[in-house]
Amino acid sequence: MNESPAPSEPTTPPAPGSRRPGGRTARTRAAVRDAVLSGLAEHGYPGLTVEYVAEHSGVHKTTLYRRWGTLEGLVADALDLAGEDTWTPPDTGSLAGDLRALAREVSESFADPAAAAAPTAFVGAAFQSPRAAEALRAFYAERFRRCEPVVERAVERGEAPPGTDAGAVVRAASAPLFLRLFVTREPVDTALADQSAAAALAAVEAGAFTTSNG
Amino acid sequence: MNESPAPSEPTTPPAPGSRRPGGRTARTRAAVRDAVLSGLAEHGYPGLTVEYVAEHSGVHKTTLYRRWGTLEGLVADALDLAGEDTWTPPDTGSLAGDLRALAREVSESFADPAAAAAPTAFVGAAFQSPRAAEALRAFYAERFRRCEPVVERAVERGEAPPGTDAGAVVRAASAPLFLRLFVTREPVDTALADQSAAAALAAVEAGAFTTSNG
Repeated sequence: MNESPAPSEPTTPPAPGSRRPGGRTARTRAAVRDAVLSGLAEHGYPGLTVEYVAEHSGVHKTTLYRRWGTLEGLVADALDLAGEDTWTPPDTGSLAGDLRALAREVSESFADPAAAAAPTAFVGAAFQSPRAAEALRAFYAERFRRCEPVVERAVERGEAPPGTDAGAVVRAASAPLFLRLFVTREPVDTALADQSAAAALAAVEAGAFTTSNG
Repeated sequence: MNESPAPSEPTTPPAPGSRRPGGRTARTRAAVRDAVLSGLAEHGYPGLTVEYVAEHSGVHKTTLYRRWGTLEGLVADALDLAGEDTWTPPDTGSLAGDLRALAREVSESFADPAAAAAPTAFVGAAFQSPRAAEALRAFYAERFRRCEPVVERAVERGEAPPGTDAGAVVRAASAPLFLRLFVTREPVDTALADQSAAAALAAVEAGAFTTSNG
């Protein structure tokens, strides 16, 4: 898909992630996002180039530079777009089940090296690019925000004390997995996901996450 | 310190990290380690060069290539050397106090951006260099292994159930901090360290880390 600016397009480049143009512009953005993802999966952030993105998206390099500015902008926008999905947290009917499902989602999504390559490269890119770091921060803030109803429902059901810090709970349930995946470089599996979820649940029940505790 | 091989030195380069030669060789290794650390702090892994290490250590580039092979080897050896310190975990007399001290050590060591720069660069380097990743894995495996007596003492004092998975507990106490520092890019502080430690303690007391639970 080679693209030249259409007359109806604004002359100033849209700030990636700040609006969601429909139609061809949205398709271009998705094609660029896909090329960034495959480039990150194949080469990691240090090996990704604007040339690669142009070649694999079919969008001309000039257009990429005009709209996204830099490689950092391309990576940040791919993360922004990833965060615009309709993902919702599990709703199994119990806090134990929901936390276990959340933790297993993390361990399973990183079990397949091919599937894990692009998300891992995003985490790595944040060490080198302030814009990628900010996009990653926003991505996870939104992900964990969406998880908060898991804890709110548990409070309503009487499974968690009122005043439980929902954000802290959903982070704690997956934190031991992220620690091993991205810092200590240790393997993770379903048993570890279940242990992490069970530990977070026990801490919730003991009131370790109630805000009066902090 | 410019160095040329002394007659008494073995002609084969010592595998970095596999032995600890004393005297001048040890001083050279420490000088090279210091240069790697300052380079990582200043430029991060992508900006570190063998030239920088040569200039800042006073060790000739030829010597660096002969002994350490590559930039990856230099970074891995700096991590190996960091792991050869005499660090021991806190021993406050209670599991609550020890876990809190451990978690606070993590939050405090990353509170100062200047002090955090080199360790952060090591974590980032592991995304690009398999040798750095392996050295980082070994470093943290050893660190957490040294922490296990914290839990063993707690079992002896009756503060933790027999069969508590010590490695899982000490990782859980700091995992929410590492998650925020290196993945979600959120701030950490003492209150968060205390919350993480309290959550791990509550999970221990509830038996969430006993191996029969896994």
